[in-house]
Amino acid sequence: MESKEWSSGVWTHLTAVRRQSPLVQCITNLVSMDLVANTLLSAGASPAMVHSVAEVPDFTPHIHALCINVGTLTPDWLPSMKAAAELAAQLGKPWVLDPAAVSCSGFRLKACLELVELKPSVIKGNGSEIITLSGSASQGQTKGADSSHESTEAIEAAKSLALSSGAVVAVSGAVDIVTDGKRVIGVHNGTKMMQKITATGCSLAGLVAAFLAVDSLQPLEATVSAMSVFGIAGELGEELANGPASLRMHLIDSLYGLDETTVLSRVKINRLG
Amino acid sequence: MESKEWSSGVWTHLTAVRRQSPLVQCITNLVSMDLVANTLLSAGASPAMVHSVAEVPDFTPHIHALCINVGTLTPDWLPSMKAAAELAAQLGKPWVLDPAAVSCSGFRLKACLELVELKPSVIKGNGSEIITLSGSASQGQTKGADSSHESTEAIEAAKSLALSSGAVVAVSGAVDIVTDGKRVIGVHNGTKMMQKITATGCSLAGLVAAFLAVDSLQPLEATVSAMSVFGIAGELGEELANGPASLRMHLIDSLYGLDETTVLSRVKINRLG
Amino acid sequence: MESKEWSSGVWTHLTAVRRQSPLVQCITNLVSMDLVANTLLSAGASPAMVHSVAEVPDFTPHIHALCINVGTLTPDWLPSMKAAAELAAQLGKPWVLDPAAVSCSGFRLKACLELVELKPSVIKGNGSEIITLSGSASQGQTKGADSSHESTEAIEAAKSLALSSGAVVAVSGAVDIVTDGKRVIGVHNGTKMMQKITATGCSLAGLVAAFLAVDSLQPLEATVSAMSVFGIAGELGEELANGPASLRMHLIDSLYGLDETTVLSRVKINRLG
Repeated sequence: MESKEWSSGVWTHLTAVRRQSPLVQCITNLVSMDLVANTLLSAGASPAMVHSVAEVPDFTPHIHALCINVGTLTPDWLPSMKAAAELAAQLGKPWVLDPAAVSCSGFRLKACLELVELKPSVIKGNGSEIITLSGSASQGQTKGADSSHESTEAIEAAKSLALSSGAVVAVSGAVDIVTDGKRVIGVHNGTKMMQKITATGCSLAGLVAAFLAVDSLQPLEATVSAMSVFGIAGELGEELANGPASLRMHLIDSLYGLDETTVLSRVKINRLG
Repeated sequence: MESKEWSSGVWTHLTAVRRQSPLVQCITNLVSMDLVANTLLSAGASPAMVHSVAEVPDFTPHIHALCINVGTLTPDWLPSMKAAAELAAQLGKPWVLDPAAVSCSGFRLKACLELVELKPSVIKGNGSEIITLSGSASQGQTKGADSSHESTEAIEAAKSLALSSGAVVAVSGAVDIVTDGKRVIGVHNGTKMMQKITATGCSLAGLVAAFLAVDSLQPLEATVSAMSVFGIAGELGEELANGPASLRMHLIDSLYGLDETTVLSRVKINRLG
Repeated sequence: MESKEWSSGVWTHLTAVRRQSPLVQCITNLVSMDLVANTLLSAGASPAMVHSVAEVPDFTPHIHALCINVGTLTPDWLPSMKAAAELAAQLGKPWVLDPAAVSCSGFRLKACLELVELKPSVIKGNGSEIITLSGSASQGQTKGADSSHESTEAIEAAKSLALSSGAVVAVSGAVDIVTDGKRVIGVHNGTKMMQKITATGCSLAGLVAAFLAVDSLQPLEATVSAMSVFGIAGELGEELANGPASLRMHLIDSLYGLDETTVLSRVKINRLG
């Protein structure tokens, strides 16, 4: 299946998010909350940054999808992440794990491995994060939030993680890779400068959750669509931008305004394996 | 009293904020801190995001107003909110309660009801939040931060909450409603796209606190002025915007640059009851 | 040494940050995380907002510099700040202390004095903060994050603090002052409107850490360069801005795009004592 066949699916997913405005609970890091929320609002979803374990039992049953990001993890946040993930999985609601900077400490790696056990629908990371999480690299090889691997170097690790976890695995990079362990899809939208804006990766994870909310039975297709849409918004944004901060603004504006013609003509997705 | 009569009051309040630069303590949610602070700075106030209970006894006596928002409430933040509110009320300093997403859990509803007992000067929410807080709806009807009620549907709930709490109650929406339980004022400034930016409601609550700081004896008038000013900045912003992110930027720029002629010609306030 | 002699050093430092992309751990306040991270990314550095005490032993040994800002300090954050500072100092890694709003409580003043004991390479504050920290003013004179002193009023306090602490002391203001207790340098770049954007001071502290990472043996020179670069980006930004929010965007874009000719022609640094 090539771009033309994928592109109508991308548009269908975006339209569904806009129409249904799914409620997406985000337990995300402190750096990204603003951009994640604005990304979801611009896409037509309804973000809810509810992270207290005291609220999970009342709130999580009402959500349509959950996104968990460990970017500024501390021990006191972990119980709410686990409680929300467990409840979401139990209630059949899709949830996304973003193992941000998973290799920065043994504590974080252990927390992510425990979260993987709670059956995320999608795991989204950069190449280094997916390689670490799949066990292909020992903890400690890469530090910080930036990847030291190309996404394409992580294909085997992604497939292996998908098969062992049961999750769709998405690897962001120059080419975004999405795999369910069998199929491997490449998303060629996006622009390099997006890496110079903090929290774009976290925002993409939130967007994947929103797309899963409207097509939870096809997590690979929903993930591919979200990554393509976010990449297209970035491409349109970069045409108007003079640097990372104006790109951030134009990216969100573009996401809000995306129309069918633009989406259909811009989608670049192909099967890699 | 119609717009013409209100508009000079709006300008007087804004001018007083710019001249006095009131120190506004904000114990707000993690998503909104950046935009709340920038809104207050652009309006001429001095924001202070001081939320540690260890600092309340030293710091709160020096503030001119307080804003409390429960948008990302966890049990460990509640004691500082209560301590600051109690001290502010005791020292005669105005304070604003923003019961963000109050219906998302029993924990949050209980916390908000306890905060209402501590005598806020103003309670500002969307229609669903005010209806829930007034007891007109059972907890659980609406979820997340977005309202499922028009502000005008919440007028009776707002009046009832104002009378029972002693606070001025402000309901944001297509028309903003402000009531002290007797008078009901409508503020018709603002633009729909502001709802697509996270934390605009929180920022408005912060702005109300700044306006209360310069006219604490007239909380209804100060609240009406703050809502009108914020709405006008949004209208001016939208004229220059291509989407929510550029609106956010232009809104803050417009708030910073607002001049008398623009304010006087744009204010749309009337008495509804 | 006058501007012409300093300017090539400024450009050399910026180029080194872009080339080496130092990993800068930031334990900063909740308001500033987004702008600090984006400032560092735009300058070419790699920010890491890692603040859990559980991660310090694994992570901090890998960083190139550390920045600690107490702007939203609570007692539970202090142990990680101390642990990271102690480890950084022990491993010979430069670290910056930003004693934001140090005078707002006895708790915060005590915490900052304890952090000063842990041998920061640079202490960066506004006039009021440096005066308070140096012991030249009793706690309680100034409140909130905004300074009530010109930077030039703080020169003696800065020199005294530099001598007693062993740190380079930087005072932001209309003229930025940098001193090691003997030399006093004035940086005349920047623009007044930057004070109307929250977290610019915090972002500058992060940038100083990145510059220290590439020239840790010359902390005074690295600090002067970072302050000049940030100021120049602000000047360029203001030429394009209509208010604080567009200034914020253009500042980051300008920082990202700064070229040699612009830097060399804009640097305004001189020796004041």
